[in-house]
Amino acid sequence: MTQRFDFDVTARDGKARGGVISTPRGEVRTPAFMPVGTAATVKAMLPGSVRATGADILLGNTYHLMLRPTAERIAGLGGLHRFMNWDHPILTDSGGFQVMSLSGLRKMNEDGVTFKSHIDGSSHFLSPERSMEIQRLLGSDIVMCFDECPALPATEERVAHSMRLSMRWAERSRAAFGDRPGHALFGIMQGGVTPELRAESAQKLCATGFDGYAVGGLAVGEGQAAMFGVLDYATDLLPADKPRYLMGVGKPDDIVGAVERGIDMMDCVLPSRSGRTGQAFTRRGVGNLKNARHQSDPRPLDEACSCPCCNGYSRAYLHHVLRAQEIIASMLLTWHNLHYYQELMAGLRGAIAAGGLAGFVAEFHAARGQGDMEPV
Amino acid sequence: MTQRFDFDVTARDGKARGGVISTPRGEVRTPAFMPVGTAATVKAMLPGSVRATGADILLGNTYHLMLRPTAERIAGLGGLHRFMNWDHPILTDSGGFQVMSLSGLRKMNEDGVTFKSHIDGSSHFLSPERSMEIQRLLGSDIVMCFDECPALPATEERVAHSMRLSMRWAERSRAAFGDRPGHALFGIMQGGVTPELRAESAQKLCATGFDGYAVGGLAVGEGQAAMFGVLDYATDLLPADKPRYLMGVGKPDDIVGAVERGIDMMDCVLPSRSGRTGQAFTRRGVGNLKNARHQSDPRPLDEACSCPCCNGYSRAYLHHVLRAQEIIASMLLTWHNLHYYQELMAGLRGAIAAGGLAGFVAEFHAARGQGDMEPV
Repeated sequence: MTQRFDFDVTARDGKARGGVISTPRGEVRTPAFMPVGTAATVKAMLPGSVRATGADILLGNTYHLMLRPTAERIAGLGGLHRFMNWDHPILTDSGGFQVMSLSGLRKMNEDGVTFKSHIDGSSHFLSPERSMEIQRLLGSDIVMCFDECPALPATEERVAHSMRLSMRWAERSRAAFGDRPGHALFGIMQGGVTPELRAESAQKLCATGFDGYAVGGLAVGEGQAAMFGVLDYATDLLPADKPRYLMGVGKPDDIVGAVERGIDMMDCVLPSRSGRTGQAFTRRGVGNLKNARHQSDPRPLDEACSCPCCNGYSRAYLHHVLRAQEIIASMLLTWHNLHYYQELMAGLRGAIAAGGLAGFVAEFHAARGQGDMEPV
Repeated sequence: MTQRFDFDVTARDGKARGGVISTPRGEVRTPAFMPVGTAATVKAMLPGSVRATGADILLGNTYHLMLRPTAERIAGLGGLHRFMNWDHPILTDSGGFQVMSLSGLRKMNEDGVTFKSHIDGSSHFLSPERSMEIQRLLGSDIVMCFDECPALPATEERVAHSMRLSMRWAERSRAAFGDRPGHALFGIMQGGVTPELRAESAQKLCATGFDGYAVGGLAVGEGQAAMFGVLDYATDLLPADKPRYLMGVGKPDDIVGAVERGIDMMDCVLPSRSGRTGQAFTRRGVGNLKNARHQSDPRPLDEACSCPCCNGYSRAYLHHVLRAQEIIASMLLTWHNLHYYQELMAGLRGAIAAGGLAGFVAEFHAARGQGDMEPV
């Protein structure tokens, strides 16, 4: 196993790339989808089951973990991998995004952000330096720069100001991260939907130099068309030999469109969160198992799916356990959804390797266009 | 595999017996503990995981299943085994006990009980005949007679009246059950804590003739000493060549004492329900992982336990996911507790087979007397 962080592009189809990220913790096949393990668990899943869906890497949330159980406690227990019983790569976010979306009273200045915990109201501070320290304590394999990101729509002036602050913080993150062989630091491009700001951001990040580059500030309310509009040029602004990560994306068709536009990594709570509310993703689109149409349906969610949910349980059973608010409903639907997402990624990787991405994407959209099976 | 229901006592140690129940669905090693799968799921567990703990048989609740998703729907979907993806034996209760403990307005007469659902207030009727029909629709391997049981303390007159009604209902259950090769019908002894009433009940049941006999009306508030007091003579009133089932029991020391007194089967929600509240059973007693003493403890719940919870997770992790109200807390602690219960049963069976039950029981109590490990 390699002792350093590396990325090899092994196939190209249009702007899409297939490749492998190598780390001392194992390989990540790209394009990769990263399930979200917010509080040191992918909700309703055991880590072995997450791995069985085909996941090579998880995402952990710095904001949640710094508040509970704290980064220092996790470090004392041997790091996040051992703590949560996942010995493959972990990427951690910087905490910046969730400070903005979840915490109480905030006070931001050039130095960093002071905020109150959404759990108990206690006061905390995050800065580029502290975020790097926390992610080091967690033992993260891929560390994200500390940044700030306004929700869209926002004025161009606000977006520009925020982007330039994030770029200064990216330099401080780089300096604080230091030299850690086998661990990677990713920069985060900002700039909203303004090409000139995106270009300025990319130029600054590339001048500093990172092991990978995220496209930040998307999937924050701008809609798919605007997101694809940015991705159409944003990936070209980033180095071809480094992984490109689209943060917080997304729905299956968002993922397919992002991969077509040259994205290598994504993460989203959607497959796990949706599973807990009864929503299931299949090749034929999205359905909610709470719907009465499923109450006597003996068929699995997807007859072509090989996941444990589809191989042991009827739609009628899933409907029943959802209505009865049984934990197994979350367990089975999360497993199915994560399996679906990983199968989609495997399909994308295979299609890129074979030079057949356009056909794969056409079939993907055609199957979804059919809609769910007719009721029995 | 056998085509009929059978029971062989293969070892005795004092009053304790080791044996095997054979059914077309598989064997049940006795003494057996049956995890409770109330609403067609052992809460927070996949059936394969329940099996992995060593369970040979599950209990399903007629009352819950008749209300949702209904016995008729389960029958239409191929029966309870297929519905819940468990292909080993299932015992179902009659619904009688839970009508009394859970339902709204009830009206009971000689014929049966009319009651309102605790879910939606709808009106339902249960009688010996309807209970037999529901348990047949579910496809239960071991069917329980429909009975009535007053909570203790109750006057002897009330207990006697209730017992005699239950004995008439047992005859009607027997007649309604009919001849179903491979399926068993168990009678339920009542009579509270009064030896004469217990004897009268046993005599009536034996005159009718059943495939097994439950000791009912215990674990309803009378305390362990009173329960053991009844068991001291009650098992002797039942046929030696049929399985004896103590319903709704219990804590680990209840189980050990019941086995010592000649009980072959038990069921209880305790290991699964406790798991969901953070309570863990180990050889050294009971502890609650929510307690702050565990928050930095790198050790597993029980260093000698081979379950997936103890083989992947620290007490600190369990404490964290409990505090964060993560589903994995219920998953891991339920698994551990069911594993502990099944290990206890395996230990009891091994000790009986070796003629060493007294020594096993002494060690069981000595280990519990030590209490939990000292904090680190």
